[in-house]
Amino acid sequence: MFRKLMTFEEAQKTIEEHFKPTFLGEEEVVLLEAYNRVLNEDITSSLDIPPFNRSTVDGYAVKAQDTYGAEENQPATLKVVGIANVGEQPQVKVGMGEAVEIVTGAPLPEGADAVVMVEDTQREDSQLHVFNAVTINENVQKKGSDIKKDALILKKGQVLGPSEIGVLAALGLTKAKVLKIPIVAILSTGGEVTELGKKLPTGKIYDINAYSIGTAVIEAGCKPLYFGVIPDDKAALSKALQTAVSCADMVITSGGVSVGPKDYTPQIVDSLGKPGIVVYGVAVKPGKPTTVGFVGEKPVFALPGHPTSALLIFYLFARPLLLRLAGKPAMPMRTVRAVAGSRMFSAKGRRTFVMVRLEFDANCRLLAVPVESGASGAITTLAGADGFVEIRENEQFVDADEEVLVYLFRGSGFRT
Amino acid sequence: MFRKLMTFEEAQKTIEEHFKPTFLGEEEVVLLEAYNRVLNEDITSSLDIPPFNRSTVDGYAVKAQDTYGAEENQPATLKVVGIANVGEQPQVKVGMGEAVEIVTGAPLPEGADAVVMVEDTQREDSQLHVFNAVTINENVQKKGSDIKKDALILKKGQVLGPSEIGVLAALGLTKAKVLKIPIVAILSTGGEVTELGKKLPTGKIYDINAYSIGTAVIEAGCKPLYFGVIPDDKAALSKALQTAVSCADMVITSGGVSVGPKDYTPQIVDSLGKPGIVVYGVAVKPGKPTTVGFVGEKPVFALPGHPTSALLIFYLFARPLLLRLAGKPAMPMRTVRAVAGSRMFSAKGRRTFVMVRLEFDANCRLLAVPVESGASGAITTLAGADGFVEIRENEQFVDADEEVLVYLFRGSGFRT
Repeated sequence: MFRKLMTFEEAQKTIEEHFKPTFLGEEEVVLLEAYNRVLNEDITSSLDIPPFNRSTVDGYAVKAQDTYGAEENQPATLKVVGIANVGEQPQVKVGMGEAVEIVTGAPLPEGADAVVMVEDTQREDSQLHVFNAVTINENVQKKGSDIKKDALILKKGQVLGPSEIGVLAALGLTKAKVLKIPIVAILSTGGEVTELGKKLPTGKIYDINAYSIGTAVIEAGCKPLYFGVIPDDKAALSKALQTAVSCADMVITSGGVSVGPKDYTPQIVDSLGKPGIVVYGVAVKPGKPTTVGFVGEKPVFALPGHPTSALLIFYLFARPLLLRLAGKPAMPMRTVRAVAGSRMFSAKGRRTFVMVRLEFDANCRLLAVPVESGASGAITTLAGADGFVEIRENEQFVDADEEVLVYLFRGSGFRT
Repeated sequence: MFRKLMTFEEAQKTIEEHFKPTFLGEEEVVLLEAYNRVLNEDITSSLDIPPFNRSTVDGYAVKAQDTYGAEENQPATLKVVGIANVGEQPQVKVGMGEAVEIVTGAPLPEGADAVVMVEDTQREDSQLHVFNAVTINENVQKKGSDIKKDALILKKGQVLGPSEIGVLAALGLTKAKVLKIPIVAILSTGGEVTELGKKLPTGKIYDINAYSIGTAVIEAGCKPLYFGVIPDDKAALSKALQTAVSCADMVITSGGVSVGPKDYTPQIVDSLGKPGIVVYGVAVKPGKPTTVGFVGEKPVFALPGHPTSALLIFYLFARPLLLRLAGKPAMPMRTVRAVAGSRMFSAKGRRTFVMVRLEFDANCRLLAVPVESGASGAITTLAGADGFVEIRENEQFVDADEEVLVYLFRGSGFRT
């Protein structure tokens, strides 16, 4: 079976044509666990906030007109008739010529329409001298001035961070309706792959991809569902893929896509449902054997077995779909501008991604230094890279000292 | 009690002088839960990776010298004596004039020192014609070429992401020793503050800060420990603070720090241990009543009650300490350059932080538009802001159309 490799853009376009971000359903979570979830309801305010006229300072609640004309050498003198504390509706009222002691955050007593700051007063028993006039509503936060009852304050689709969760708390809500988190089935294939924690038999290697890709799934805010290493046997793989497709929102396999005698992942995907495999290999380096299919609306990615290739292809093709399944805004990878530390060659006719490490040179220029990859799929390449540089098909190389854009693998920037 | 406000820098310096990032201890976690944790051990490789000489292509394992001089119209002819599969040490050996069929990833049979790609061969039963010469080690990934046994491959202090966890998996490790996650006690004070989920009595407001700050703690990769709303009573607050100091790595209270009659948080912190409160208010706007202390080495932040102020002060002062307690690299807030959407004024003599919303204007310029704050502490300010602009004490204002640096509240950029 020989098929022409798709270009990077053709593969993206083909995936896009088949991908329908399905609604994964909603669930209710308590506020303390709502971080980074996607709100699935519009929130309108059930109350005025603040729910009452509120003093913004410590001082005295008054009728503003009683203070008109008051100044340093000609104070207004009022009678203190009580106190307004936070957390309770004051029982006392403010009449003409009267004042009520009040603290920040306390409700204004009936009759008062402004608050004089304590610094602008002098008190002798129940006599209060006011040295500064206030206007109506001065030092008062009016009922509903922050949020009006019935106002729309959070919209369906917003990602809940500290501020949004603060807003939900302001309304006294303890729960929020959010989108379900996408579940990603992770299967490892390949006769040489062994589960961690077991003794390594001769000729075998440990399963890396389930863990690196699983972690990248967590990093994207989604849930990996580990299927482990599937025995190298068509019936077993078929059964595992069938289960994966029926219980996860995306399926990722790794290994088993080079054209060896035992590589039947694509056949099985085709047999599970339409349209089946839609991308048979992509003209990229690394990652050429990348295979992508859909069983109904479920995306199935068969990533290459090499750890670096697998993680790169996950970032390039799978992660954007996953974020959209999660209902999150398209979040491009972080980038940083740097200078090529040495000449980087492209693979003839293939979109090339060169893993680089960031470091500063003696002139404080940020350098993107290619990570020595040795043989393809080296694990040290993964561990040593801060990100990658993209070289397009029509470029032969990027020369040393040329400016390059580095796509960062993680938010925190450089390794230490 | 009147004390001179510290400047922003004085407060930072004072906190720095008292802060000792203590070792919180280590714990062992399984690899699947190690994401974003800080490694607390050096990892040296217990094996060569790959653990054997490995073919990087599908083809035939040969002695390179048997192919020397082979070309399109003058093939070398070898005898196929067996097959090498992935995952098992081949039983067959390659002698002079012999070849062994091999797939990608399979161990090289004894005697072979190179692999001819299947594309460069033609086979008739056990006869193999080779049309292209190979050199020694061609298409072979040598044992230990990726990672040598006993090499140091991950260092204590590294944050575990997809790549690092992939490297741990490559060694067959199922667990990692990591630093414990800092625990942050979160206490709400203030007689007007009510727990969520209860009916709101007249004169009261719901507890916002525990939720916004708690979420910001989670966002920083740490664990909030919620103490709820502490009754407005000195003994109760004293007991809660004492418990918080003894069981958490940082304590954050909010509310109760303006100079009202019932604000005894600072007194209690002083009574719990040396040095007690070290910052009594900071010349910033908003956030002036910010109080910071240490009980032994435990930092205690008494944040202002206003939601916007509390979250801002958390980001400015508490979060950097929290990341260092977690053993993580100092991660500055993300910033973006924008153009002031309107004139922003500073508060006389105070470092001013103006909450802004980002939007594009008709000319595709990124604007930082101040969020109408109404009265201080508005919740809508929180919900509407993408970040803030800093105005220094010696600046009167930032004019419309001036370039400003916007500190972003979250990684994902704009709100939708």
